[in-house]
Amino acid sequence: MARTLHLALSAYGVGGPGQHGLWKDPRVPNNASVDINYYIRQAQTAEQALFDAYFIVDSQFINAGYPAHYLSRLEPLTLLSAVATHTRHIGLIGTASSTYNSPFNLARRFASLDHISGGRAGWNVVTSFDTGTSRNYGLDEHLDYGTRYGRALEAVEVVRGLWDSYEPDAFPADVERNLFLDPTKLHALDHVGEHFKVAGPLNLDRSPQGQPVIFQAGVSEEGRTLAAHVAEGIYAPGGSLAESQDYYADIKRRAAALGRDPDHVVILVGASPVVAATDADAHRLSRDIFEADNDFDRKLGFLGRSFGAYDFSGHDLDAPFPDLAHLAEKGGRTRGLEIVRQARDEGLTLRQVVETVTEYAPSPFTGAPDTVVDAIEQWFTTGAADGLNLRFRTHDDLERFVADVVPSLQKRGLFRTEYTGDTLRDNLGLPIPVNRYARERETAAAQA
Amino acid sequence: MARTLHLALSAYGVGGPGQHGLWKDPRVPNNASVDINYYIRQAQTAEQALFDAYFIVDSQFINAGYPAHYLSRLEPLTLLSAVATHTRHIGLIGTASSTYNSPFNLARRFASLDHISGGRAGWNVVTSFDTGTSRNYGLDEHLDYGTRYGRALEAVEVVRGLWDSYEPDAFPADVERNLFLDPTKLHALDHVGEHFKVAGPLNLDRSPQGQPVIFQAGVSEEGRTLAAHVAEGIYAPGGSLAESQDYYADIKRRAAALGRDPDHVVILVGASPVVAATDADAHRLSRDIFEADNDFDRKLGFLGRSFGAYDFSGHDLDAPFPDLAHLAEKGGRTRGLEIVRQARDEGLTLRQVVETVTEYAPSPFTGAPDTVVDAIEQWFTTGAADGLNLRFRTHDDLERFVADVVPSLQKRGLFRTEYTGDTLRDNLGLPIPVNRYARERETAAAQA
Ligand SMILES: Cc1cc2nc3c(=O)[nH]c(=O)nc-3n(C[C@H](O)[C@H](O)[C@H](O)COP(=O)(O)O)c2cc1C
Ligand SMILES: Cc1cc2nc3c(=O)[nH]c(=O)nc-3n(C[C@H](O)[C@H](O)[C@H](O)COP(=O)(O)O)c2cc1C
Repeated sequence: MARTLHLALSAYGVGGPGQHGLWKDPRVPNNASVDINYYIRQAQTAEQALFDAYFIVDSQFINAGYPAHYLSRLEPLTLLSAVATHTRHIGLIGTASSTYNSPFNLARRFASLDHISGGRAGWNVVTSFDTGTSRNYGLDEHLDYGTRYGRALEAVEVVRGLWDSYEPDAFPADVERNLFLDPTKLHALDHVGEHFKVAGPLNLDRSPQGQPVIFQAGVSEEGRTLAAHVAEGIYAPGGSLAESQDYYADIKRRAAALGRDPDHVVILVGASPVVAATDADAHRLSRDIFEADNDFDRKLGFLGRSFGAYDFSGHDLDAPFPDLAHLAEKGGRTRGLEIVRQARDEGLTLRQVVETVTEYAPSPFTGAPDTVVDAIEQWFTTGAADGLNLRFRTHDDLERFVADVVPSLQKRGLFRTEYTGDTLRDNLGLPIPVNRYARERETAAAQA
Repeated sequence: MARTLHLALSAYGVGGPGQHGLWKDPRVPNNASVDINYYIRQAQTAEQALFDAYFIVDSQFINAGYPAHYLSRLEPLTLLSAVATHTRHIGLIGTASSTYNSPFNLARRFASLDHISGGRAGWNVVTSFDTGTSRNYGLDEHLDYGTRYGRALEAVEVVRGLWDSYEPDAFPADVERNLFLDPTKLHALDHVGEHFKVAGPLNLDRSPQGQPVIFQAGVSEEGRTLAAHVAEGIYAPGGSLAESQDYYADIKRRAAALGRDPDHVVILVGASPVVAATDADAHRLSRDIFEADNDFDRKLGFLGRSFGAYDFSGHDLDAPFPDLAHLAEKGGRTRGLEIVRQARDEGLTLRQVVETVTEYAPSPFTGAPDTVVDAIEQWFTTGAADGLNLRFRTHDDLERFVADVVPSLQKRGLFRTEYTGDTLRDNLGLPIPVNRYARERETAAAQA
């Protein structure tokens, strides 16, 4: 089978850096981030355009300095459940933290979404970026990287174990034999690990795709290790073409080294296309968007996010950037350490850091439709991405992309012209995981 | 305002004692408990009949001996989110355990459902009946009553505190002043208690009904204390008219003693009506239903549920019932201790206990339509119930009740003839809780 480009739509309205000023756009309702109809419409538009999946990011910490659409937003699984019954083909990927949820609850909720959607659920496993999150869950300190990623790996293993509680044909529902459940096909997991102790079984049958798809987002060494072990899809941060190629090659190599098929780790690079009639128009638009939201105090407030919601307001803006490496370590280390390193190497003040980290940098997918199509093709064919996780500002921007870019991708044979299945696994070309107990049973039968 | 009868529909398909054999009914699809369309249809039928709410019970523990519709079922909040966008008026009450969920996650998910439904969410707070649940959450032993109910009360307080994070007018969204959020109207809770430490704020705005409605189910001394303190609605177990009157009077008295308005604790008694053309037909039908599912081994298996999924299969059926009081203490004490006491007082063997606890006892709401209407009126007017939480076996039974019983209730002026609002609080006649910070602000202003 020819390799196919995968396109996910990352919900707009649920926030992301740089979206703060969006509420001023008259086309965006002020309550967009809590209006379920806003999300349903996005997902339906993406489904009409044959996208693979609809993607919801998440966080469980805010303060008043956070971007507008972080401040009040729907919880991903309740959101996606509501979207599920208004769509039929598009995958539904929700972000949930393995640090602040119990594996049994995670297993249940994603399996439940998987049933409600007829096999379209995906779990984007994150360890929680925002340091302050810990204090919403009884911990004074955010867990460190080793512990968070250790928990993440074990959580995924437990959740998958629970998803195997029932073998595929566990419910004969045979009235004559008075047999609803075949009790030999229900299994307790009895997991005892470093971080979790979970007996099972889960009180949910397998879904049409066997198990929800495991996604992962997080680029540290620990994050890559997790991805290589268990991710079937990755939300990758983007950056330059060369950076994405490096990341892509690294992940595929790691997965192969662990004996996995690298094609079964689908890498979606985050992308914020800006499409206009001409390249010049698109770049002008991109710059305008940047300037409209270019507020120093807000940016200063938000810089604290990389350092555990650190409050910079007491600092001298023109003194050298303080050494906050120890704070970065607890939260989003990768980003925080990068900032500290750059500030030190280039001798930047706090003011300069704010300007530098929020410097204008147009998306590589900015331009006239053909330019954007060329860029996507380049990323797809030169080992930078298996697809994109697309972020738009408004519904108009999504519709423009669907009208002007998607048809060209199809014409070039890069993107599907119809759905060929009904599950997220079908969309992503991923196999249905074999139930572990069914496999044991078969192995035993083969040996007998 | 005249007192109005409240009717909730307890979802059928999610299980309950005595429903084991339901899968044999050709009208019930075998996957009913995981088919979201099955639930949507129930809720829509109940909404057409102007019911107050749709109610989902829950558990997080199974073994192969559990009734068929416990074995594989949707998680309540994902289920209700999907139902929310297919209904407009009916309340959506989901059961969730305060023992095995963190308050921050509970606050978020119910507030999210509350937004998705436009102000129709309710949380039925339970402490988890099934002893075995603990082993799905890392604990060898189920927490004891004191701890479980202590956590429950504190969890509700924390969750309500988080639901007040934003004052009602926190988002001016004023483009001219460049002010989306008024930061003085966002509040961290900074809760430090015996069981929980939760900083907040919650990343969700208030909903149209201010806060989801708190329900409670559990009849022990500890359960009643919790109800009197925080419940705005109660799912009461039923029993005889006299028992229900005692319970009703006790709860209203306790609430009043705590300075609460007893009308703001709406008591819904669980009821399983069996309606037929004549009283005799209804009693025959009721008996048939009982006999169709009257399997000794299954009942023996399920008896263990009251004693922490205890396995009776090794016991001599004709020996005296073993003293399992210590096991009851950990799980559903009220029920378990009742069984132990009765067995001791009456000198029952294990076999006799199984027969006694599962003895045929027709619902007080069995009969021809007028008989059932009379019974409902009696319960409602003699201080036994503010309404009923109705359990049916099949969609046909719900439809029969809607067609034959509801109109008579309306004719007698007991039940509404149209919805007078859009939220669950509207349906139940409950006030919108005043935001605690807005109240402080007003008090301070009045004193100044
Ligand atoms: C593209 C991308 C998207 C992410 N999305 C989320 C998210 O929605 N919620 C979250 O808590 N963390 C998110 N993360 C953060 C990771 O979960 C991780 O906790 C954080 O980045 C620190 O780990 P790292 O250094 O491995 O990236 C994301 C990371 C990346 C790279
Ligand atoms: C009518 C009624 C319905 C209940 N529904 C549930 C339920 O859905 N899930 C659950 O875990 N417990 C449920 N409970 C159990 C209580 O949460 C409680 O844990 C258990 O009954 C033991 O406490 P108690 O002795 O106070 O009743 C219910 C109890 C009653 C009386």
